[in-house]
Amino acid sequence: MIQLTLLGTSCMVPTKERNVTSFFLDFNGEGILVDCGEGTQRQMNIANINRNKVKKILISHWHGDHVAGMLGLIQTISNNTEGTTIEIFGPKETKKRFEMLMNSTYFGNISRLNLKITEIIPKDKDKLETFYESPNYYLQAISLDHGIPTLGYRFVEKDKRRISTSKTSKLGIPEGPLLGKLQDGRSIEFKGKSYSSDELTYLVPGKVIAFIMDTAYVKNTIILAQDADVVISEATYLDKHVDKADQYKHMSVKQAAQIAHEANAKKLVMTHFSQRYSDVSELEEEARDIFPESYAGFDFMKIKV
Amino acid sequence: MIQLTLLGTSCMVPTKERNVTSFFLDFNGEGILVDCGEGTQRQMNIANINRNKVKKILISHWHGDHVAGMLGLIQTISNNTEGTTIEIFGPKETKKRFEMLMNSTYFGNISRLNLKITEIIPKDKDKLETFYESPNYYLQAISLDHGIPTLGYRFVEKDKRRISTSKTSKLGIPEGPLLGKLQDGRSIEFKGKSYSSDELTYLVPGKVIAFIMDTAYVKNTIILAQDADVVISEATYLDKHVDKADQYKHMSVKQAAQIAHEANAKKLVMTHFSQRYSDVSELEEEARDIFPESYAGFDFMKIKV
Repeated sequence: MIQLTLLGTSCMVPTKERNVTSFFLDFNGEGILVDCGEGTQRQMNIANINRNKVKKILISHWHGDHVAGMLGLIQTISNNTEGTTIEIFGPKETKKRFEMLMNSTYFGNISRLNLKITEIIPKDKDKLETFYESPNYYLQAISLDHGIPTLGYRFVEKDKRRISTSKTSKLGIPEGPLLGKLQDGRSIEFKGKSYSSDELTYLVPGKVIAFIMDTAYVKNTIILAQDADVVISEATYLDKHVDKADQYKHMSVKQAAQIAHEANAKKLVMTHFSQRYSDVSELEEEARDIFPESYAGFDFMKIKV
Repeated sequence: MIQLTLLGTSCMVPTKERNVTSFFLDFNGEGILVDCGEGTQRQMNIANINRNKVKKILISHWHGDHVAGMLGLIQTISNNTEGTTIEIFGPKETKKRFEMLMNSTYFGNISRLNLKITEIIPKDKDKLETFYESPNYYLQAISLDHGIPTLGYRFVEKDKRRISTSKTSKLGIPEGPLLGKLQDGRSIEFKGKSYSSDELTYLVPGKVIAFIMDTAYVKNTIILAQDADVVISEATYLDKHVDKADQYKHMSVKQAAQIAHEANAKKLVMTHFSQRYSDVSELEEEARDIFPESYAGFDFMKIKV
C-alpha cells in the first residue's frame, strides 16, 4: 500500500486553510516524511497519522517553512518511543542546521532516539543520485535551483514479481515453497521438469513519486519527474505572476504542468501556493491547458499510488 | 482596551483541538505575546490577530512547546515589515538559545528587524522584579520551579486618573487644556481660584494579569498572582494525578485554584492541560470547589480585562 497525504500546501506562511509544506508517504506502514514545516506534528494528528511511524525525513532545503516542524515532531517521537531510528536526509549544511535547531531548546529525551543525519551532495549536479536502497524501494535526489542548497526527491518502488497463478495451477504446482522460489526469481523442479521464474511469473512495475519542492524552472525537474506515477510539485504562482516566480526562484503553474507533460508523468498534484490565491481553481484550469491530469493539492488530500 | 486571547492550551504536544502554549495580550493595540509554541503564527491568523502587532515576547522557559513558534512568527513579521522593533524577554540562556533557533534556517530578512533580547535573572529569587516600564504599564517577573530556568510574568497597568466631570462642569471648567493638566496630576487656576488635581479627579485602579506557566507548586506563584484581575495558570493534571505533577514539576488543578484563592485573585483561567483529558469539565469542577471563579481555558478564548 502506497498512500501519500498532503499535510501542508501553502507557500512560506500558513493560512487559515493551508499549513506550510509537508508530505507523508506511507509505504506498507513505513513513514517517509518529505519536508516538515512548522505545525506538521499537529497536521499529522488531525490526519490520524501515527507520528511514531516516521522513519525517514527528506529535507528539500533549509527555509523555515520546510523544516521548522522537525523540532516539535522529533521531541514528540522521543517522548513516545525509545530506541527508534530516524534517518534524516538533506542538502549541504543539514547536519549543522539540524543540530542548531535541536539544541535551541531543552530537550532531555533526544538521546532516546537513534538519529542518523546524511547530507546528500550529488557528485554530478545534473544526475539523479541514489542515496538509499531497501529491499522494496530506493530513494533518489537531484540538485534544484532555489538560491540555497536544494534537492528534489524521487521515490522508486522496485518492480514486484507476481506468480502467474493460471499457469501454476494448470501445472498443478501447489501453494508453498515452490511458489516462494519462483517469486524470488529462482527456477524450480516439479514432477521431473524444470521451470524458470520468468516462465511462471510476471513483473508489476513499481510506482514512482517525484517531489519537486522550491525551485526555479530548471531541466533537472524533468529528470526527477520522468515517467512518474505522481508528481508533487510546487506551483507557487499563476502565469501572470511568473515574474515573481523568476524573482524568488519558484515556478508558475504552467511551468509545473510543462514538467509533468515533458516528463511523461501520469498525474500532477500542485502545491505550495502563494497566499494571494484564496481560490485555486484558476490555477488548476491553467495547468490543465498543458497537462490535463493536473490537480490543485489541499491539506489532508490523500493520494493512493 | 485590554484583551487577552488564548492561542494554545495544551501541554507538551498539540491535539486536534488545542495547540501548544501561547497567549496574546492586546493592550490598546500593542501586542504582547506570552510564550510562542509551534504553530502560534497560524493560530494568530485563525484568530484574526495581525501578527505585525507583536512588539514584545515574554518567554517563560525554553521547552520547545513554549518557544518553537518564534522561528516562523519572526520570519513572517520580517517579511511583512521593515524596521520593526521586537523586544524579547526570557530567562537565563535566552540569548544563546534564541540565536540558535534563528540561525538554524536560512533567514535573509532578519536584519530588517530590530530585535532586542533581554535575559531576566532576578536578583532576589523570591521577589518580583520589574524589568520593563512604559507610561501606561509595567512588566514584572519572578523565578518559578520547572527544573530549568523559568519565569512567571505579571502585567500591571498603571492606575488611570479620570476627571470628575460632575465637579468640573459644576464649576464651569470648559473642556480643553485645563482638564488636560488635571488629568496629568497637575493643579490649575480657574476664575482666580486654585484647584489641585486630587480635588477634581479620581483614580481608576489599573488591571493586573498574572501568567503562571510551567512550574511546580511554589510560593512565588502566589506573589505573582496577588490581587490579580486574571490569573492564567498552568493546571496540567487532575488531583488524582498529582504524583505526575510532582514528578514533572507541574501543577494540579487544585493547586492552581489554591493559588488564586490565597492570592485573592478575581478570576482564574486554567490552561496547559495534559492530553489525557479530552473533556475538561471535570477539571473545572475540581477547581471551583476551591475557587469558584475558575474557568478551563480553550483555544481562541477571548478575555476582556
